[in-house]
Amino acid sequence: MEKKFMKLAMKEAQKAFDKDEVPVGCVIVKEGKVIARGHNVRQKTQNALKHAEMIAIEKACKKVGSWRLEECDLYVTLEPCPMCAGACINARIKNIFFGAYDPKAGCCGTLYDLPSDKRFNHRPNVEGGILKEECAQMLSSFFKNKRK
Amino acid sequence: MEKKFMKLAMKEAQKAFDKDEVPVGCVIVKEGKVIARGHNVRQKTQNALKHAEMIAIEKACKKVGSWRLEECDLYVTLEPCPMCAGACINARIKNIFFGAYDPKAGCCGTLYDLPSDKRFNHRPNVEGGILKEECAQMLSSFFKNKRK
Repeated sequence: MEKKFMKLAMKEAQKAFDKDEVPVGCVIVKEGKVIARGHNVRQKTQNALKHAEMIAIEKACKKVGSWRLEECDLYVTLEPCPMCAGACINARIKNIFFGAYDPKAGCCGTLYDLPSDKRFNHRPNVEGGILKEECAQMLSSFFKNKRK
Repeated sequence: MEKKFMKLAMKEAQKAFDKDEVPVGCVIVKEGKVIARGHNVRQKTQNALKHAEMIAIEKACKKVGSWRLEECDLYVTLEPCPMCAGACINARIKNIFFGAYDPKAGCCGTLYDLPSDKRFNHRPNVEGGILKEECAQMLSSFFKNKRK
């Protein structure tokens, strides 16, 4: 785990924030290099699937030329939801590093711990809470502005 | 629930079968009409996200012009995996109707029952086992051929 990659994921989250989207950002790293980036664009695209992780995983598959991302680490500023945790399992992501915990939908330890379930045919390692204050701060600023 | 829609989902699954993909098919129905179809194309696209449900949900969002598919029912030949069950929750699908149960990754009652979890902000209704023998038959033919 390298904090510099979470900082890059936070830069992606800032792009979402600037578009008035829930600020979540993601980067995927292979052999020490960022190979894909993504940020949440659900509102802009009006597509329920366009979470940061999904966009980054799709790009990474294209880059690697395979649906198997076995040597890839995913950094995301918010704990993945069931869809995104499931996508990480399906794409065989090696390590999931997330920032803020998500008490409402987090499926990498909070509500469920899907990636650690031995019944699935792949188990990404998970480490949460990386730069969690900074990651959570961006989310709380966003929702505070929304309520104004 | 109308079985004719599961038969249309099976037609989609047949398209996957014919492309040498794991035969899973899906249709999304709104006000009695099919508004989106999808079949698994993970191998062809080398994209881990291209399950039948994901393709159909993306198309349905485009058709409806919204990420909210609140009046939509999803018919799929195999029980959704965590990613696809999560996508149904995120897209606010009204009813999930599935065919065969999936003992390896099913998250609509088998390994987990994600759509019924009250902690998420939407809960699709689920009915499984519709035309399950026919749906399962297509899958077992596929894997039998693979092992030859």
